[in-house]
Amino acid sequence: MRRIAVTVEYMGTAYCGWQRQKNGLSVQQAMADAFFKLTGEKVTLHGSGRTDAGVHALGQVVHFDTNTTIPAHKLPFAWNTVLPSDIRVLDAKEVDENFHARFCVKRKTYQYRFYFSPHASALRKDFACHFTQEENFEEMKKAAKHFEGTFDFKGFQATGGHVKTTVRTIYSATLEKEGNEYVFEICGNGFLYNMVRIIAGTIVYVGIGKLKADDIPDIIASGDRKRAGKTLPAYGLYLKKAEY
Amino acid sequence: MRRIAVTVEYMGTAYCGWQRQKNGLSVQQAMADAFFKLTGEKVTLHGSGRTDAGVHALGQVVHFDTNTTIPAHKLPFAWNTVLPSDIRVLDAKEVDENFHARFCVKRKTYQYRFYFSPHASALRKDFACHFTQEENFEEMKKAAKHFEGTFDFKGFQATGGHVKTTVRTIYSATLEKEGNEYVFEICGNGFLYNMVRIIAGTIVYVGIGKLKADDIPDIIASGDRKRAGKTLPAYGLYLKKAEY
Repeated sequence: MRRIAVTVEYMGTAYCGWQRQKNGLSVQQAMADAFFKLTGEKVTLHGSGRTDAGVHALGQVVHFDTNTTIPAHKLPFAWNTVLPSDIRVLDAKEVDENFHARFCVKRKTYQYRFYFSPHASALRKDFACHFTQEENFEEMKKAAKHFEGTFDFKGFQATGGHVKTTVRTIYSATLEKEGNEYVFEICGNGFLYNMVRIIAGTIVYVGIGKLKADDIPDIIASGDRKRAGKTLPAYGLYLKKAEY
Repeated sequence: MRRIAVTVEYMGTAYCGWQRQKNGLSVQQAMADAFFKLTGEKVTLHGSGRTDAGVHALGQVVHFDTNTTIPAHKLPFAWNTVLPSDIRVLDAKEVDENFHARFCVKRKTYQYRFYFSPHASALRKDFACHFTQEENFEEMKKAAKHFEGTFDFKGFQATGGHVKTTVRTIYSATLEKEGNEYVFEICGNGFLYNMVRIIAGTIVYVGIGKLKADDIPDIIASGDRKRAGKTLPAYGLYLKKAEY
């Protein structure tokens, strides 16, 4: 028995999320099904965290125990021959038996993509969130920076989350422009449920003048969900990286 | 009766192409159906040219005659409320009765997107063509430039095209890198069937060392389809612009 960790890119559009569910196909199940097809072995896959339906991953980290004799460096090529084309294993390596994709993760990085334009983009419909208003890039950049630090983010979570503490450390939170699209990138030691989508919604509110960048520290301190912006849709969100 | 020209962006993935066909839904039909839903009027839509199944458009130009009283500047907003989200009307204006989207077009611009990487990208599966080899950017850039000018492109067409002349003028042909992706952009007075996809395939052959950039003039002059590169798949191709 060996423990293997893989890095996975997926387009979340066709899936009910990372986690196996009763209704709908999950990325986890599609990967396990493909692995079974390849090797005849049933494996239990552990991701660095769940992603919701429609959320994409550039670098989800997944570990599992296996008896396969396929060498780790050949596994991505083999697995990709049986995976659907919207899931791709980019990398695989053998890891220590104490490694756990979820429990050992030290930092995670997410991206949220959005743009402002009179009409939505047909080509970006599943990949970035559209707003019709005019935006203020400098104010949004300033707003993003206010999320850096260690704070109690209890106002930035969806109801229904069960966590011991709502304090999280954000190492970096930046906004860049790529063509017509804004890329908000946030790296932290952990994230509450829907936290990135609410932070992105708050930055957009600053961009369209519904909030001021310098209101952010007060909004965080208030712990009041109602003072933050809207939860933006899942399809603009990307799990970029999990670090150990 | 007024003649209106619209600029349309679409994701070609779900369609059998621009042109109405017996089997499968075309972009043309989806647009006509939506217009009927909006106004109760059946219109005949004329595109600047056909696009094959899977080919995308950033700026297809479409004209039609209509009795609708919706002002041209409001039409994109109204039409978009009834269109599928993978088709978006970006712009509309009233045009002269002599304007014809196909017969009056003076220049068209296409993009072909591709990338080189050990594994394909799950997120770009419908949007860019993947190659596993290592590439030579400078040679590919040089290769692209060789297509600029007026040439007989009879070696760069799929069989089955029925055209009076295979001479075309290419005003510009350039290769740029956007992140990990190469964007080949070509502007000309017209294109033969599959011409952009064959030129892109020839540039990729140069990139992976199967051909040399300076072989291109000879290959064009030979008129021999077998000396050019492969026809790349439809999903990497974008109709960017039609100019009048």
